[in-house]
Amino acid sequence: MAKPPVLTPRADDFPRWYQDLINKAELADNGPVRGTMVIRPYGYGLWERMQQEMDARIKEAGAQNAYFPLFIPQSYLTREAEHVEGFAPELAVVTHGGGKELEEPVVVRPTSETIINEYFSKWVQSYRDLPLLINQWANVVRWELRPRVFLRTTEFLWQEGHTAHASREDARDYAAHIHRDVYADFMENVLAMDVVAGRKTVRERFAGAINTLTLEGMMGDGKALQLATSHELGQNFAKAFDTRYLSKDGGQEYVWQTSWGSTTRMIGALVMTHGDDNGLRVPPRLAAVQVVVVAVKEDEAVLAAVRELADRLTKAGVRARVDVRTDTPFGRRAVDWELKGVPVRIEIGPRDLASGTAMLVRRIPGGKEPVSVESLPGLLPGVLEADQALLLAQSRERRISRTSEVATFDEAVEVATGGGWARLPWSALGPEGEARLGEHGVTVRCLVAEDGSVPAADDSPGNVAVVARAY
Amino acid sequence: MAKPPVLTPRADDFPRWYQDLINKAELADNGPVRGTMVIRPYGYGLWERMQQEMDARIKEAGAQNAYFPLFIPQSYLTREAEHVEGFAPELAVVTHGGGKELEEPVVVRPTSETIINEYFSKWVQSYRDLPLLINQWANVVRWELRPRVFLRTTEFLWQEGHTAHASREDARDYAAHIHRDVYADFMENVLAMDVVAGRKTVRERFAGAINTLTLEGMMGDGKALQLATSHELGQNFAKAFDTRYLSKDGGQEYVWQTSWGSTTRMIGALVMTHGDDNGLRVPPRLAAVQVVVVAVKEDEAVLAAVRELADRLTKAGVRARVDVRTDTPFGRRAVDWELKGVPVRIEIGPRDLASGTAMLVRRIPGGKEPVSVESLPGLLPGVLEADQALLLAQSRERRISRTSEVATFDEAVEVATGGGWARLPWSALGPEGEARLGEHGVTVRCLVAEDGSVPAADDSPGNVAVVARAY
Repeated sequence: MAKPPVLTPRADDFPRWYQDLINKAELADNGPVRGTMVIRPYGYGLWERMQQEMDARIKEAGAQNAYFPLFIPQSYLTREAEHVEGFAPELAVVTHGGGKELEEPVVVRPTSETIINEYFSKWVQSYRDLPLLINQWANVVRWELRPRVFLRTTEFLWQEGHTAHASREDARDYAAHIHRDVYADFMENVLAMDVVAGRKTVRERFAGAINTLTLEGMMGDGKALQLATSHELGQNFAKAFDTRYLSKDGGQEYVWQTSWGSTTRMIGALVMTHGDDNGLRVPPRLAAVQVVVVAVKEDEAVLAAVRELADRLTKAGVRARVDVRTDTPFGRRAVDWELKGVPVRIEIGPRDLASGTAMLVRRIPGGKEPVSVESLPGLLPGVLEADQALLLAQSRERRISRTSEVATFDEAVEVATGGGWARLPWSALGPEGEARLGEHGVTVRCLVAEDGSVPAADDSPGNVAVVARAY
Repeated sequence: MAKPPVLTPRADDFPRWYQDLINKAELADNGPVRGTMVIRPYGYGLWERMQQEMDARIKEAGAQNAYFPLFIPQSYLTREAEHVEGFAPELAVVTHGGGKELEEPVVVRPTSETIINEYFSKWVQSYRDLPLLINQWANVVRWELRPRVFLRTTEFLWQEGHTAHASREDARDYAAHIHRDVYADFMENVLAMDVVAGRKTVRERFAGAINTLTLEGMMGDGKALQLATSHELGQNFAKAFDTRYLSKDGGQEYVWQTSWGSTTRMIGALVMTHGDDNGLRVPPRLAAVQVVVVAVKEDEAVLAAVRELADRLTKAGVRARVDVRTDTPFGRRAVDWELKGVPVRIEIGPRDLASGTAMLVRRIPGGKEPVSVESLPGLLPGVLEADQALLLAQSRERRISRTSEVATFDEAVEVATGGGWARLPWSALGPEGEARLGEHGVTVRCLVAEDGSVPAADDSPGNVAVVARAY
């Protein structure tokens, strides 16, 4: 009799598979307040590695980290009309503090454009102060009626960048720089996730932006997930908060701004992009543990060999750790490492010692084979890079094979509701067609140019709309 | 006519000097909601370095990072009687979310013992799951009626550790381990701050703890500041949240717990410990920028020499950056680096190039001298270590010179209200004497043993009470 599967198979019930994996790989639990989550150590470890890689890229782009308050006076939100309209339905409001009712209620930040502009107005005096490039790592709250762990949560963790520039061109270039050299670079080269880079339609733009750039990924079930966005804010917030600077020719000018964010949703994206019926598969460049060296049994010589190999791997630049929990059955530990998606497992038992071999188990392509222990420090860096490349190739292959070129609204709906992505000329859809997509639970994920680049405008000739169901 | 001082001199008005320094060194601004703060990039850079150093020590102590929700159901707080009594007056309460009044109000976490125990109860099943060692980096909110930036703020950033153990001894040892090998080690060896390690009296304990270990530092005005605390929680939260485990002999036992925290208050402590009338002095091991190489004037050869030296210093393991903002007057830049407290400034101008020298300006001991550029990469690592040691020695010297051994309540009050610390036998004070200290604005900061170690109990023979005014 076959063992029952560890997880609900993806083909049976993809959402349930996702929730099973999150629970059994110990990534997160639901929080007690609806829509909140507890990020468990293994899940948080993924986030820490994401932060390290992203933070390095953000600093390379010249932005400095800072921290703005969680609490924003309610009146700030109302100063930019589209912004408050977009966020009002999602706000959490603090009405009591220190045992008293507050004179003015404060909102828990859903995003920080308003409070940051209040300070940019003080800090920016002249053109010498520009560009002002700020980032913060923080928690934000958007009340969520249909929560799903990591993907849509009432509280989530993110980074939000906020910048002010002397010209529209400078702001536009910086938003594009972040989109390409921070976000797309990180997604493809660290997360091994294929992404489509495009611009949002007016309908899908950030509340208060004049342009939103997005990266969209295809998940294992063919649905789209918005992975990170970079906005040109124009002068909307500058005018609402009177953020002006003395220009070189002595005039007072409003600044041009950007904002850009990426969130713990990326953990959910990682699961739904690379996970399989046995659990998660973590890209080696992201993995805090790239190789786990497992002692099959309690045995002094085995434990010594395991520790020695892990040390040699560490010296070879591999992030290795040992598993010497020999009071837990070997099979259970193997299932746990599969669930957690550590890229490579090296198993060493008493019989292996005699032959100088170990079992090399590869989580990403699958399969196992005995190899000489001596060869491992030389072998593994190449194995890990091959696994990294394979994940990206699989992700890309999925997107390509499930994307169809179509010519009509009806065809686009058929493809998207069937679990694929449709590419439809934007001229054949337009804002009116886009509005009708909603009746079918389908949206325009982004517009891309004919040559695959990001269009300069919604109505650039040849623009293609990518139409899909989305999380 | 002498120039006006950049900062209010400490001797004139210490609190105003502190606020001046925070503003002019661009560490922080006050936030719009009372008691909140905006941590500016230079201040946040100090926090990032603190986080790196602390996080490495916390992981070395075996704890793993995780993240628990910001919002806690109000009912959780009430389960541990002392805990709710301690925190109720400081809570911020969310009553509305997503446009509706909530059925049960939620509080913004003031600390996370309650919500973490809710999950520990699920995660801990057997003795094999212990010890469970968790840390989180997060923001917390305690409504503050008399705020002071960094020292007492309505919202602050911190790390909070939470652990569960199988025995009281194991919990006690772990709380002491954190107190000594994470907190005291970090304060002395990175922040270069002299600390007194002791235990809090019952009156000063954390709400819900059975023992609180503390580190107390003496600020530049002789007042004390509590820098970090490590608590034994006994089984108080375990009983309130039914956190039990299956013991080796098959019984169901409550776990023994610890919690421990350190906050952005450490930035304020850094200012008040090492700051002088010219600004901050940052300990070299903490400094993100240890050496700034300054181009005195716009000159191609000067700029090249500045960049080349900074590169060579970086290669020598020094955290160096260049200042080539030659469109800002040199004097203003020099004042700014003094304010920000970068340990070493190397100034290079056209005349220096000819002689192969540069001006070495040392912020920590003060003084400047010309040195050969060639010698700097070899010289500076030793200079920085000497500066680090000097700051610690000055901090220690201050505490020793302003601490008095006294025998009576009245003498203790006289010393403490005069801006020093009094050491008084606890047997001569006791809980009743301690209660009366409040009339004089004075508290027992901690109890220490005769030999300077941390006492095992409040009433251990020979215990000495350290009595002072405090922030």
